[in-house]
Amino acid sequence: MAVYTEVGDEALAAFLADFDLGSIVAFRGIAEGVENSNFSLRTTVGDYILTLYEKRVEPADLPWFLGLMEHLATRGINCPLPVHGRDGVALRVLEGRHAAITTFLPGVWPRRVRREHCAPVGAALAALHLAGRDYAPTRRNALGPDGWRPLLDRARDRADEVARGLEAELDAALTAILAAWPSGLPVGHIHADLFPDNVFFLDGRLSGLIDFYFAATDLLAYDVAVCLNAWCFEPDFSLNVTKARAMLAAYEAKRPLSQPERAALPVLCQGAAIRFLLTRLYDWVNTPPGAMVTRKDPIEYLRRLRFHMAASNEHAYGI
Amino acid sequence: MAVYTEVGDEALAAFLADFDLGSIVAFRGIAEGVENSNFSLRTTVGDYILTLYEKRVEPADLPWFLGLMEHLATRGINCPLPVHGRDGVALRVLEGRHAAITTFLPGVWPRRVRREHCAPVGAALAALHLAGRDYAPTRRNALGPDGWRPLLDRARDRADEVARGLEAELDAALTAILAAWPSGLPVGHIHADLFPDNVFFLDGRLSGLIDFYFAATDLLAYDVAVCLNAWCFEPDFSLNVTKARAMLAAYEAKRPLSQPERAALPVLCQGAAIRFLLTRLYDWVNTPPGAMVTRKDPIEYLRRLRFHMAASNEHAYGI
Repeated sequence: MAVYTEVGDEALAAFLADFDLGSIVAFRGIAEGVENSNFSLRTTVGDYILTLYEKRVEPADLPWFLGLMEHLATRGINCPLPVHGRDGVALRVLEGRHAAITTFLPGVWPRRVRREHCAPVGAALAALHLAGRDYAPTRRNALGPDGWRPLLDRARDRADEVARGLEAELDAALTAILAAWPSGLPVGHIHADLFPDNVFFLDGRLSGLIDFYFAATDLLAYDVAVCLNAWCFEPDFSLNVTKARAMLAAYEAKRPLSQPERAALPVLCQGAAIRFLLTRLYDWVNTPPGAMVTRKDPIEYLRRLRFHMAASNEHAYGI
Repeated sequence: MAVYTEVGDEALAAFLADFDLGSIVAFRGIAEGVENSNFSLRTTVGDYILTLYEKRVEPADLPWFLGLMEHLATRGINCPLPVHGRDGVALRVLEGRHAAITTFLPGVWPRRVRREHCAPVGAALAALHLAGRDYAPTRRNALGPDGWRPLLDRARDRADEVARGLEAELDAALTAILAAWPSGLPVGHIHADLFPDNVFFLDGRLSGLIDFYFAATDLLAYDVAVCLNAWCFEPDFSLNVTKARAMLAAYEAKRPLSQPERAALPVLCQGAAIRFLLTRLYDWVNTPPGAMVTRKDPIEYLRRLRFHMAASNEHAYGI
C-alpha cells in the first residue's frame, strides 16, 4: 500500500501543463506497489499512472528503467509506456520527487495463481528477454549474487528470531550457492521481480507487465528461476510440476534454454529463493509488529530454498 | 491508505456475475479512506468503486448508509450511488466482508484549501441537508456529544504524552462544552466528516461528495461546525474569516440558519474540534510510532479548540 508523497492539486495542474494530456478528470492514490507513490490519473485524453519515485529507487537508475520500458513497449511488450512532456522529457520532478507519467494498462493481477496463468507468463518473459536484446545500456543487478552476503549481514543478528537456526542455515546455503553460481550463461535485461502482482490478465489473456524498477542486466535464466519461485509453488510450498512445465515450455517455445542454462536451474532457483528470503527477512526484522503494512513472511522462501537445495538437476522442474 | 482485505480474482468474478455490469477491465486498490478497503473497478460498462466494509463500521448501520446515499443521489446530490445486483440487493458479501459497488465520481480532492473551495462546500452541505429531509430512517451519532466522554476516558492515561497538561485541558473543555450543548436546534441527516479528502472538484466546480460512513442524524448546524473546522483554518491554525464567511453565506443561501443556530456556533465548533481531537488522540496513542500509516496530529485540533473556546459569539466566524 503506497502513497508516501501527497501531490497538491496546484502542483499537479502545473506538472500536467507541461504535457499534451488535456485536463484532469480524476486522480486517486493506488494502494499497490511498495516502493513508490502511484496515482491513477484520468484526463480528458485518457488514463495514465503517475509515479513519484521514493527513497528505495536510485535516481541515477531512473533513465535506464524508463528507457527500457519505452524500448520494450515500442517492440510490442505490453508494459507501461513513459509519456513525454512537450519538451520531450519523460522523467521530471514533482513535489520534490522524481516523477513520470506512464500509460495505464488494463487487466487484473491474479490473486490466486492457476495453471492457465503459467504458460502466458513464461511466454511473456521470453518475449521480454528477446525484445530487450537491442537495448544497449546496462544496469548492474544490485540485488544479484554480489548483494546477497551484505543483505544477510544486515539481518543476521535477528534471523534466529524468525526461525531457530535460520542464520546458520542461510550462511551455509549462501556459501554453497555462491560457490556453484554459473558463469558464461546468456546475459540480458531481466525483469527480476515478475511476481503475480506485476502481471495483469484480461479475459484469460496476459494483458500487461508492470513495475520494472528491479530490472537489471543479468543472467536471463535467473529471471526464469525468479518466476518459477513466484508462480509455481502451492500454498503448502510444494512445487507444482505441471505449472513449472507449462511455464518452461512456453518460455522455450520463444527462447530455448541452452543445456548449461537448464543444468543451472537448481542453483539459479536457489539464488532466486535466497534473494527474496533475504529482502523479506530484512524487512521483517525492520518493521514494527504493529505496523499496518503487510510484512511478507520470509519463511515461505526458506521452504522454497530447501526444495531447490534438494533438487539434483533440472528434472526437478518437470523438464 | 487502505486495502485491508485482498479480493481474489475468482471471488470478484463470481461477485460481479450477480450484477449487470459487464466484465472486468481493470481492478486496483485505492490508497484512500482509512476505514474500509476500496477498489477502483472498471468494467466494460463503466467505472465503479468496490468497497469492503472493515471492522470499524457497524454492519447494522450499512443499510442506513447505503439507503441515505441512494436517497441523496436520486435527489441530485453528487454522491456515490449504490449499484443493485440483479436480485435488487446492493449490500452483499465478498471475501467474508460486507461489500457494495457504487458509482465512480470524477474529480480531485483539494490538497490545499483555497478560498474558492469554501462557498461550494457550504452550498453542497446545505443541499445535502435539504435533500436528506425526507429520508425517514435515523441513525444515532455514535461520535456525537454522548460519545466524547468515553473517548476521552480511553485515551486520558496517555494524553499528557502528546502535550503537557492535555488531559486537564480536555476535561475542563469537555465539561464546559457538554454543559453548554444546545437543545432544540433543527435535526437532520448530517455527513459529519466532510473534510477536503471527501469532496471532489473538477474544473473549479464541486463534482462530488463521498464517504458517508460517519453520517448520522444530529444537529444540522453541527455539520456546519465540522466544515468550519475542516476547511476554514490556515496552516498557522488561525481562522480564515473570509473562508468562513464564504462558506456560511453559501450555506445560508440555501438553508438560512436560525438565530439559535447562529448563536450556538461557538459551542458547536468547540464540540466538532474536540470530537476530531479525541479520535485523533485515541489513534495517536494506539498507533506504534514506526507504523507506516500517517497519524494525524491531534494538536491541530487543540489549536482549533482553543480558538473556539475564546469565541464569544457567532461574529467570530464572520457573520
